[in-house]
Parts: sequence; structure tokens; C-alpha cells
Amino acid sequence: MQKGKLYLIPNTLGSDDLSRVIPPYIKEVINTIEHYIVENIQTAAKFLKLAGINKPLRELTFYVLNAKSKESDITTYLDETEGGKDTGLISEAGLPCIADPGSVIVKMAHQKGIQVVPLSGPSSIMLALMASGVSGQNFAFIGYLPIDKNARVKKIKGLGSKIKQEGQTQIFIEAPHRNDKLLADILSNSPGDIILSISKNLTMETEEIISGTIEQLRNKNIILGKEPVIFVLGK
Amino acid sequence: MQKGKLYLIPNTLGSDDLSRVIPPYIKEVINTIEHYIVENIQTAAKFLKLAGINKPLRELTFYVLNAKSKESDITTYLDETEGGKDTGLISEAGLPCIADPGSVIVKMAHQKGIQVVPLSGPSSIMLALMASGVSGQNFAFIGYLPIDKNARVKKIKGLGSKIKQEGQTQIFIEAPHRNDKLLADILSNSPGDIILSISKNLTMETEEIISGTIEQLRNKNIILGKEPVIFVLGK
Repeated sequence: MQKGKLYLIPNTLGSDDLSRVIPPYIKEVINTIEHYIVENIQTAAKFLKLAGINKPLRELTFYVLNAKSKESDITTYLDETEGGKDTGLISEAGLPCIADPGSVIVKMAHQKGIQVVPLSGPSSIMLALMASGVSGQNFAFIGYLPIDKNARVKKIKGLGSKIKQEGQTQIFIEAPHRNDKLLADILSNSPGDIILSISKNLTMETEEIISGTIEQLRNKNIILGKEPVIFVLGK
Repeated sequence: MQKGKLYLIPNTLGSDDLSRVIPPYIKEVINTIEHYIVENIQTAAKFLKLAGINKPLRELTFYVLNAKSKESDITTYLDETEGGKDTGLISEAGLPCIADPGSVIVKMAHQKGIQVVPLSGPSSIMLALMASGVSGQNFAFIGYLPIDKNARVKKIKGLGSKIKQEGQTQIFIEAPHRNDKLLADILSNSPGDIILSISKNLTMETEEIISGTIEQLRNKNIILGKEPVIFVLGK
């Protein structure tokens, strides 16, 4: 029997307006799938409804894969896929496997000889990098910076040196309630001539992108608030 | 007078089937724009026609921005945008400003106080990372490896150590005619237990994704040929 495929399905970045960010093909794909591995059932269900799924959700099977999942929890998640049924992987927001734990199931799929099909959609990391005005030819996404103040300041100083010496753009995120603290630390501890770009509420009506040298941004009184933000630091 | 906006418009990765990769909103946007800054006029024109532009192309203005452009060539490119006309930036393939020279015009837009609007579309780098089965929580895109054999082997060995020690996934590309040479060098010079994922012809009918440990892939006789490929190395 032929094995099913594992489709990597993009979610929105929080907006309900899918036409801005999701290609029409996704609707075709979700209407052929009954098994889903999802980071969060609620956000996945909302997405599937917005994307135009034509089956009642109660007829679908959802398996949860999130940061708390252990490898032993997920060993059976691809059994139906091995048996011939296509499966969809959906993240809480944006692209599955980017800044989320989805890659473990993709690794397992490759080990089992299941075809993996990545589908296009919104990536907050890429949108922030495109909009930053700094080089996208060599860049790193490093996730979260340390929470501890001293370790964080040390990390920020290290990023500044790395950018000046190696020219590699650095992209990172923060828990929204710590955005303004992180911003203050970046402005105080980075070389004045490198560029900081801050992308807030990407793809939403309230999208805002601020870019300038550290020196320029020190003079503006920027308040980010508790919104989703991507930080891009480069030259 | 209000300034125009700079829209960052995604192109396909080479396929003519836009419905797989481009959100419907792009069609709305391109039908409000008459000025374009493009990496390649031919591929941009082809894209605009496929995306459903309803104006004859001869009524549009195209400015070329590619690897050969000097800063002095592009100083006037945003004059119309400052004067109130929206402008679109289109890369030869995929997302503008990612692995292409587009960021200089975005930087200039920020300096002139022009709003930058990044739009979602296919990113071969993200699709390859999603499909790789290695961690997408901390990764770097490093462009091309050195062409010189000794420097290249040294770089590959360095990437292997970096992955083992720091766990940062490394993504890179190669000119298609050198794919198989690079693959041979990776397989010969990387630790056997790290994972190599090769994504070929992403979003095309001929898409193929190969993932496994270096040890596993050494035993397969993989021939990539002269196709667009993204290499992902990680654990």
C-alpha cells in the first residue's frame, strides 16, 4: 500500500484575513485530509474553518504536538500516514517547524519514508527581514535572548560585535511583555551605527515597521507594548 | 502630499502555477501600482502577467536593481514614491531582499520615511528548513560556500563542528552546476551523525526532498544535476 504524505500547512500570523497571506492551493489540500498534527487544536480549528474546510471538524482527528510533547507521546502520530492517509501539520501561527517543535515529526516522517510536502505561507521572520533594510544575504534566527539581565546584555554586546565583524544579520524574538525591556537593553548596548528594525503586528491592520540606526532610534521614544514583535539587527 | 508605499512583492520559485504559492491579495496590490523596481524585467513581467495584472506592461515603469547596480544608479528610484505613487519591488524568484540585493532600496525607503509593506509568498529557504526535519528554532542562512576546494572543505568542517557544539542549523546554496561537487564534499567532510537535507525544485512538479544522516546518505548514490537546490545541515 502506498504511504500517505505529510503536508506542512502554514497558518496565519493571527489575522482573520487569509486572502492576504495564504495561497488558494491550501484549501484544496485541507479538503483531502482528515488527520492533523497540530500545535494547538483551537487555533488549528479556527484556521481550517477560515480556510474553507468543507467537513465538520468532529470528523477530523487531531493529535497535539507542542513544546511539552515527549518523543514517547508522538510515536503513533504517523501510523495513519504510513497506512496511506495524508496528514497535515499545523503550527499555532505561521510556518510549521520554524521556531516551533514541529521538526521532530518531520524527522520521523523521513525515517519512515513518508513524503514531506512543505507549503508556502507567511513567515514573520522572513517578512521582518525583507522589511528591515539590512542584508538578507547572510542571516541568523536565534530565537529568544537570555532572560537574565547580565546574560542578556552580554549577548546583545556579542551580537553587535558579530554584526560589525562578520556582517551576519541577527534576528530574534521576545515574549511580548518583555519587548520594551529588551528594546531598552538593545539601544543601550549596541554600536550606534548598526541598524535595528522592529516589525510589530506583521500582516495585521496595525502592522508597523520601524527601522533606523541605533543612534537614530535612541532619540525616538518608541513604546512597543505587549504585541508580537520581531527584532532584526544588522548593517 | 502623502508619500507612496514600497510593496515588497513575492515572485514564484519558477513554477507557472501561482495558486500554489501566491496569496490572492497580491493581485489587488499589483493592480494599483505602475512603478516597479525589479531584479530582472523579463521574470518580473512574466510574473505580473501570471498574477493577473490588468494594464498593458508598456504603461508600467520598470527600474532595474541587481547585483551589478551601484548606489549612484538607484538614487532616483524612489522619486515617484516620494511624490505619492506606490512602488513594487520584485525579485527574480521568491521573496525580495532575501538572498538578493533588494535591501538597499528598502534601507533608502526607511531613510526617506516611505512606508515599507512586506507581502507573503514562497521562500525556498523556509520551505527547505520546514521540510528538513532538523531544528528550526535556531538557524543561519549563509549563502554560498567558497568555490576554492580547500577553503570549501575547511568551511564544511567548520559547519559540522558548529552544529555539533552550538546546535545551530546551517542553510546554504550553490550554483546548480556545482551541486554534485558540493554534495560530495559535504558527505566526505561532515560528522556521520548529523543530518543533511536536500530540497530540489521546491514548489515544482519535480520537487524532491532527501533527508537523512550523513552516514545514511553516503550509502545512497544521489545525483542532483543542475537543478535549484537548498542544502540544510543540522541535528
